[in-house]
Amino acid sequence: MKIIVDGMGGDDAPQVIVDGACQAAEELPEGVSIVLVGREDVLKSELKKLHYKGDKIEIVNADDVITNDESPVRAIRRKKESSIVKGIEMVKNGEGEAFVSAGSTGALLAGGLLILGRINGIDRPSLATIYPVVGREPSLILDAGANAECRASNLREFGVMGSIYMERVMGRPNPTVGLVNIGTEEGKGTALTKEAFKLLSESDVNFIGNIETRELQNGAADVIVTDGFTGNALIKLTEGIGAMVLREMKNRFTKNIKNKLGALLLKDQLLGIKKEFNYSEYGGAPILGVKGVVLKSHGSSDAMAIKQTILKAIPFVENRVVDTIATAISELAAEDTADSADL
Amino acid sequence: MKIIVDGMGGDDAPQVIVDGACQAAEELPEGVSIVLVGREDVLKSELKKLHYKGDKIEIVNADDVITNDESPVRAIRRKKESSIVKGIEMVKNGEGEAFVSAGSTGALLAGGLLILGRINGIDRPSLATIYPVVGREPSLILDAGANAECRASNLREFGVMGSIYMERVMGRPNPTVGLVNIGTEEGKGTALTKEAFKLLSESDVNFIGNIETRELQNGAADVIVTDGFTGNALIKLTEGIGAMVLREMKNRFTKNIKNKLGALLLKDQLLGIKKEFNYSEYGGAPILGVKGVVLKSHGSSDAMAIKQTILKAIPFVENRVVDTIATAISELAAEDTADSADL
Repeated sequence: MKIIVDGMGGDDAPQVIVDGACQAAEELPEGVSIVLVGREDVLKSELKKLHYKGDKIEIVNADDVITNDESPVRAIRRKKESSIVKGIEMVKNGEGEAFVSAGSTGALLAGGLLILGRINGIDRPSLATIYPVVGREPSLILDAGANAECRASNLREFGVMGSIYMERVMGRPNPTVGLVNIGTEEGKGTALTKEAFKLLSESDVNFIGNIETRELQNGAADVIVTDGFTGNALIKLTEGIGAMVLREMKNRFTKNIKNKLGALLLKDQLLGIKKEFNYSEYGGAPILGVKGVVLKSHGSSDAMAIKQTILKAIPFVENRVVDTIATAISELAAEDTADSADL
Repeated sequence: MKIIVDGMGGDDAPQVIVDGACQAAEELPEGVSIVLVGREDVLKSELKKLHYKGDKIEIVNADDVITNDESPVRAIRRKKESSIVKGIEMVKNGEGEAFVSAGSTGALLAGGLLILGRINGIDRPSLATIYPVVGREPSLILDAGANAECRASNLREFGVMGSIYMERVMGRPNPTVGLVNIGTEEGKGTALTKEAFKLLSESDVNFIGNIETRELQNGAADVIVTDGFTGNALIKLTEGIGAMVLREMKNRFTKNIKNKLGALLLKDQLLGIKKEFNYSEYGGAPILGVKGVVLKSHGSSDAMAIKQTILKAIPFVENRVVDTIATAISELAAEDTADSADL
């Protein structure tokens, strides 16, 4: 198995990407290797700086880089020599089994759609994000922002794809699926959530009903289904509050000698809290619903986060998530057809 | 001025309500008094327990109570002897200038709509909630859940009403208005947010554009405009994370003697953090867009929160928020008509 890694994407590329790839290389099982895509001279020099001596990393040259500021669709269409286009093309052509990037989310989505294409029957591929739950196993939220406007059938797809990813990649058997809503009772919310509730109830996923966002930090469900507007707003709010809490503790706990001494005595616990807010240990965000394995790592990923995302590609490929989604969606389509025929 | 207070609404009614009313009575300016509505014998006995001896609180009997579990519209229509219906009726009839309740939000909204009626030109009255920003002045979010589905013109109304409340009741001159969106650039988001961006830009409010939820804890805007589904989800998520942080600190900081000593040295700072997450000091959530002053206090309000909500009714009435909204909305309607005539 070859995992293609975008050497040029992310706030601190290429340094942390190459560093993360080297760290991942140490832990790769037999038969798995890494291909770094990007400017060959730059990547080579980074590998040299890190004194990488192994044989698990090769480099494929790509002269161009897609930035966060350009139109994703146009960039994918025009920048054929970019690391993102070349990397996703390699997955399509069977030169690698997975693509990992900390670059533009929009470009990765557009690349997944335009180069790999949607799985048959999938209306809207989705960006799924690991949502850390303090003191517990994380949840998976989808959609995280790929689809600002959704239909109820999209939300059902998200539930199906999220369940498969959670079970096969995160190792969570029979994952629970909850629908974000403004009340727990059936019949609450918008036309979208009412219809999605019905479709999810009738589907094969382990649907546990509506969940209020107040419960997200109690591990309300393994898979949290919502439209991309709401999902994006919830994830960014959580990030913002996490940053605020850490900043506030830092400011308050260094006010005077007494406070500083107190913080020293609580050092382990404070580091523990900081770690709980750290998304990076769970690996990146999968783009689900396209015909290939694409994992997005946070733009501000450190080397550890890059390593974890690279390693998550292995069960994503080995446990045949893409094929499993394709089968589940075609079964869903068959059921829909049978249901219509019943009428 | 008479402030009508629902003695029976809230998780800890009537005790904390009567307690809060007594505390508010101590701080009322000349000419302002409180009317407690509810079961007379119960309220009298609570007042007696608290040894209230002043002349600022009278009691009006209401035999019935509306609970959180019943259909709000049906409850308002049928329970004519309930404290909520009687209290809002008193505002309508001029027997009081404001109604304060920690009871069912749905019933308060339904009561506002059915008994007081909408201000002319207002399509959707809104529940506006104070959103605490750590280390800074709070923002106001609307809609907080009264309208799960909104049109762009509703979001414009929320911006106008929120600005007036923020300026006149919270004393924030020329408040900034931000629109919750999944990116800051114009043209981001859903059909709803794109159209609302346009309408808010053209309106008289101090619109500063789209804001991402990551910035809410940085005091992104004085008035945060969004649909009721998103607003409700954001508020409840913030509550959930706040509760989790406090719980986590409590658990971690009492693990062993060393930690406990550290926490002791940080006691003031820890209480400060706890206070920052406390919504109660800013007073309740106004229902804006109805022909009268209605303030909702959180169901789990303590006596201090009830007191603050009662006191907030004073500028709400004195600074003529309802009339100001009526004038602003009729000007908006006149502009819309003029704009259509231009075509």
